[in-house]
Amino acid sequence: MASLDPQVGNPRIGIIGSGAIGGFYGVMLARAGFDVHFLLRSEYQVVREQGLQLDSAVHGQVRMSVQAYASAADMPPCDWLLVGAKATSNAELAPLIVQAAAPQARVVLLQNGLGVEEQLRPALRPDMHLLGGLCFICVNRERPGVIRHQSLGAVNLGYHSGPAPDDAAVVVEEGAALFRAAGIDSQAMADLDQARWQKLVWNVPYNGLSVLLQASTTPLMSDADSRALIQALMAEVVAGAKACGRELPAGYAEHLFRVTEKMPDYWPSMYHDHALQRPLELQAIYAEPLARARAAGCELPRMQALYQALMFIDRRNRSA
Amino acid sequence: MASLDPQVGNPRIGIIGSGAIGGFYGVMLARAGFDVHFLLRSEYQVVREQGLQLDSAVHGQVRMSVQAYASAADMPPCDWLLVGAKATSNAELAPLIVQAAAPQARVVLLQNGLGVEEQLRPALRPDMHLLGGLCFICVNRERPGVIRHQSLGAVNLGYHSGPAPDDAAVVVEEGAALFRAAGIDSQAMADLDQARWQKLVWNVPYNGLSVLLQASTTPLMSDADSRALIQALMAEVVAGAKACGRELPAGYAEHLFRVTEKMPDYWPSMYHDHALQRPLELQAIYAEPLARARAAGCELPRMQALYQALMFIDRRNRSA
Repeated sequence: MASLDPQVGNPRIGIIGSGAIGGFYGVMLARAGFDVHFLLRSEYQVVREQGLQLDSAVHGQVRMSVQAYASAADMPPCDWLLVGAKATSNAELAPLIVQAAAPQARVVLLQNGLGVEEQLRPALRPDMHLLGGLCFICVNRERPGVIRHQSLGAVNLGYHSGPAPDDAAVVVEEGAALFRAAGIDSQAMADLDQARWQKLVWNVPYNGLSVLLQASTTPLMSDADSRALIQALMAEVVAGAKACGRELPAGYAEHLFRVTEKMPDYWPSMYHDHALQRPLELQAIYAEPLARARAAGCELPRMQALYQALMFIDRRNRSA
Repeated sequence: MASLDPQVGNPRIGIIGSGAIGGFYGVMLARAGFDVHFLLRSEYQVVREQGLQLDSAVHGQVRMSVQAYASAADMPPCDWLLVGAKATSNAELAPLIVQAAAPQARVVLLQNGLGVEEQLRPALRPDMHLLGGLCFICVNRERPGVIRHQSLGAVNLGYHSGPAPDDAAVVVEEGAALFRAAGIDSQAMADLDQARWQKLVWNVPYNGLSVLLQASTTPLMSDADSRALIQALMAEVVAGAKACGRELPAGYAEHLFRVTEKMPDYWPSMYHDHALQRPLELQAIYAEPLARARAAGCELPRMQALYQALMFIDRRNRSA
């Protein structure tokens, strides 16, 4: 592996939650020569013995042994902590994140939805920086230790809070530089909430409808009625963002719609969560945006109906 | 069987489509002594040999041999024709209805939704009266020739069109009297469209959500989110009716919500249609009301989203 010596030194990177997202970005960073440490739970034994395998339609097959840990107490102090676990487990993960963090560590929540940083922040130390990362990627965990990457890959980063808010832009640019050094498209976003609303334009229709209609992107994009429903939901998210003071770029929803049309068939992560009877990320992706839009005087009726239907489905699914 | 001699004579009644609805009302009328003739398709052989059986939680068990026909050409001319088949088969049924109709026959569409009479009317003779009937009943076909009645049973009748519109009120009252003579609660409605909008307040949420969420009334009424979604959908139907000039009685949606709370667990007919891969009555129950409300300047976003999701589900279900 090539040794790397950027201006910012060779930061130590911890990956918390090595499912599809944590696994993909962790392997890409390790492949580029960064010092990456993976905190694992159920997959620890498999990954320790067999390493991680990335089957990527973009980057080919990558197999590597990795520095794997079953306990955060065993990890060395990390300068960057990338959290790829579900937002629903943040409360549980918070003490582990703190345990693995070097002084002035930068924590990046690679999660969808609104309010995830606000929820985690009180559990972090004051010296820790907190960022959000929005991943535009089609990736899933094929089986323990094996990640399948279908397309895309970009990460947009935004700053939430930390010890020196004046340094926010510098910290975010450092993060984006890390990803770019690993061959990943990454943009610094001046406004994290704006970045999160933009990502919701995709997540609100596709995540929810994949569960509600038990359908992946290709059939959803092939039917006149589901297309119209997706567009109407996207328009509601754009309206909600605007009501909350986040004017999205003109034509942004149409852009994501066209990108999805060209993507290979994809089952969004919420579909997999439902199939595995895991809790769905309904709070961050639906409840919080709905509450913020409503507080700003903006009702989003289709999104609310979808949220209520998903709440019903999720409760039944997990009590089954 | 008791012989019946009401003022209106002893009308001959034809039942077109002897599923749950046609079977229930046909048996109740035959039991009361009316001269009832059943036009059957797939169930003809079974019913001819074994008769019809009604297992009613209200009226007990009724078993009777009936006058059954495989072809409308074999039926005697009927004064009343009760159409209990799905609205989706009206175009196909129209010639059979005409064939079985006596002069000045009264045809009653025991179907949900809007626009069903308008669709059928051009296929009828000018001398025929056309009425709509809205059934408030929990009934389903258990197996060929066996109907299970769980609760309720009322039929509200309204006049659509016919040779002597001045007689509309008299004709509707005659129909209501027939049902009442058979022990069935029946009211004459001055405005058929109003009656149809009122029934939609129930059908729009419960029929659609039973398919979308694969859930019967008891779980739907036991979850805070599905309850809120049902109430929001009901409020949209009430708003649509109002926009179309049909002001529903105050508290009507709340009344139907409470009635449903007290009902025994029930799977709406659309659920059974979906399970049997039959076409869903989406045109009459969703598309037509949405189009009328929109023409009146009123958007119903939750109902439209539900309709689009059901269109997707129905297409996939029937191409499977």
